[in-house]
Amino acid sequence: MNAFSFRLCATDGQARTGEIVTPHGIVRTPAFMPVGTQATVKGMQPEALRALGADIVLGNTYHLMLRPGAERIARLGGLHAFMRWPHAILTDSGGFQVMSLSPLRSIDANGVMFRSHLDGSTHVLTPERAVEIQSLLGADIAMQLDECVKLPASAAELARAMRLSLAWAERCKRAFEAAAEGRALFAIVQGGDDAGLRVESARALVAMDFQGYAIGGLAVGEPQEVMLRMIETVTPILPADRPRYLMGVGTPEDIVEAVARGIDMFDCVMPTRNGRHGLAFTRFGPVNLKNARHADDPRPLDPESPCAAAREYSRAYLHHLVKANEMLGAILLTTINLAYYQELMAGARAAIAAGRFADFRAALREGWARGDRAA
Amino acid sequence: MNAFSFRLCATDGQARTGEIVTPHGIVRTPAFMPVGTQATVKGMQPEALRALGADIVLGNTYHLMLRPGAERIARLGGLHAFMRWPHAILTDSGGFQVMSLSPLRSIDANGVMFRSHLDGSTHVLTPERAVEIQSLLGADIAMQLDECVKLPASAAELARAMRLSLAWAERCKRAFEAAAEGRALFAIVQGGDDAGLRVESARALVAMDFQGYAIGGLAVGEPQEVMLRMIETVTPILPADRPRYLMGVGTPEDIVEAVARGIDMFDCVMPTRNGRHGLAFTRFGPVNLKNARHADDPRPLDPESPCAAAREYSRAYLHHLVKANEMLGAILLTTINLAYYQELMAGARAAIAAGRFADFRAALREGWARGDRAA
Repeated sequence: MNAFSFRLCATDGQARTGEIVTPHGIVRTPAFMPVGTQATVKGMQPEALRALGADIVLGNTYHLMLRPGAERIARLGGLHAFMRWPHAILTDSGGFQVMSLSPLRSIDANGVMFRSHLDGSTHVLTPERAVEIQSLLGADIAMQLDECVKLPASAAELARAMRLSLAWAERCKRAFEAAAEGRALFAIVQGGDDAGLRVESARALVAMDFQGYAIGGLAVGEPQEVMLRMIETVTPILPADRPRYLMGVGTPEDIVEAVARGIDMFDCVMPTRNGRHGLAFTRFGPVNLKNARHADDPRPLDPESPCAAAREYSRAYLHHLVKANEMLGAILLTTINLAYYQELMAGARAAIAAGRFADFRAALREGWARGDRAA
Repeated sequence: MNAFSFRLCATDGQARTGEIVTPHGIVRTPAFMPVGTQATVKGMQPEALRALGADIVLGNTYHLMLRPGAERIARLGGLHAFMRWPHAILTDSGGFQVMSLSPLRSIDANGVMFRSHLDGSTHVLTPERAVEIQSLLGADIAMQLDECVKLPASAAELARAMRLSLAWAERCKRAFEAAAEGRALFAIVQGGDDAGLRVESARALVAMDFQGYAIGGLAVGEPQEVMLRMIETVTPILPADRPRYLMGVGTPEDIVEAVARGIDMFDCVMPTRNGRHGLAFTRFGPVNLKNARHADDPRPLDPESPCAAAREYSRAYLHHLVKANEMLGAILLTTINLAYYQELMAGARAAIAAGRFADFRAALREGWARGDRAA
């Protein structure tokens, strides 16, 4: 098993391509991490997910600590064995979902106390416990506990949460190092849409020397230009030799714009969740298969897609499956969307390596602007 | 494309093994047909279904005529192309599900009028229309329209429905022959649990000369011994050179007992529906994965199963997926169950061919009686 490391292979403007080595294999960056909330990427068998080109998946600490439980997963050999995903896994710290899913929670300097959305039981997540859980799961990349504030928020509220997150970063780092075994801990830059706070957060975290840096608290409802401005504010402060992870992002366009600004890693439920709701991502933009215009359409979604499901099933059939609420509709559209996202990342990596990322980005935009109806 | 034919390869007591040739390939008998109600076997990609050993699937005329519509499927190239299943398909006539699913229906000599359970629209299914729909779908094997009566029922009611079904069989046959193109139409023996009516039905249908004969109206709540007695009553009347199909059956034990009595074909939602509800069929009987005793069990369902999912995932993980209501749980258990059913049929075929069906049946019973807890 290899210890965590990161190697930058090429840059093109601010865009970067590289390789993260983890105890469970290499992650080619820029990388998109499918979200495996409850120890499964919904509807995907692990072999099929791997075949789409995924090097790494994300697991949600909040969900896994509540069910089936971190200690149980550890007894069963860790999350990789449990879900039969022998490749890299990143886990979040649980903090974000405590805020969004728990019906009752209280936060103080020590950590966050909350009730489970499943059975109402009470749990406490401290920085130390968040790290312990992620070690029990065996995550190749663990995330610090942070407090993510919804936007818009006051400067005072943003500053308080950012400074609390800094203190927790330090405690996470201390707790993590004893048990790391080649695994990595990433810090999370906070500060909302306030550039000054973002700079303060990034500088303080860089001074603590983490193995990677995430930008959190974005894609929470703010305009895209605010998100991109915050990325531009933070990335120059981050060390070039550490991976940069933009949490919870996003649309294909968001991802490409963030790659252009030096981001290396992404995760988002969009390809999986939207797929379950009948939306396909394609080279010509999103296609809503619920729409009646597909009912008699014998054409595939994209005859030139590298994804067999996008080439071989008719739109009429996909429409039927979605309308009839058939599991196969969710399975095929999840597959098609994850394939599109992985294809996007592979294209970005190749374009950066070849020094033609600007052309790649322009061609993508042209396809999306053209729209699927024109096809 | 080959025209429909049936060839008996070997017999062992009453048990038979053979091959049905259809325009879409050979069906090895005894055969189990997974149920693809809405143009999909729930949760299964067609390639995966084929890989489990399925030669034929069943489509439901009632569902398909309502959504997406038989004429639409015909315009899109037929059911095989629509659902990307290039192998054999049998469709039922729709009659059974009109009775069980439609909120309002009225039956007379002409046919059955009913309201759609989807949108309340009114539809009429006559013997001629049932045959027309199945021809539009392109079914390799079509079924006559019949009236299936729930048991218990009075002798008068059973006789009335059986004689109506005979009249409809004749109309279906007349309507079918013009457009057959190598496809086959099967008749359905009715008569409930009344041996006299069953004999009358079987004799009359044999006199009409169908390409295959089904036994309908069983496995509708009667004891297994009644079902087996009706099979024993009917099969001696049926010609040995035509396939025999026991509709809607059943448990692994029901199937093996029916094979022992000369049945060649089966369909049932049990492996798929029960799989979606957390039940696995195994060599040691059914295993309910909802049960908390599996939560910490690292063992697979069956380390010697030919099905990878049954060998490779832990019971603890399957339990977790079922409890968390994850799609992957339904996918894996559907796969495991259909694999078990196909393995059962393959075992029966080999045992009959080798003249050791009695041993095969005894060994199965021994495993089921042993139970999974003893494993």
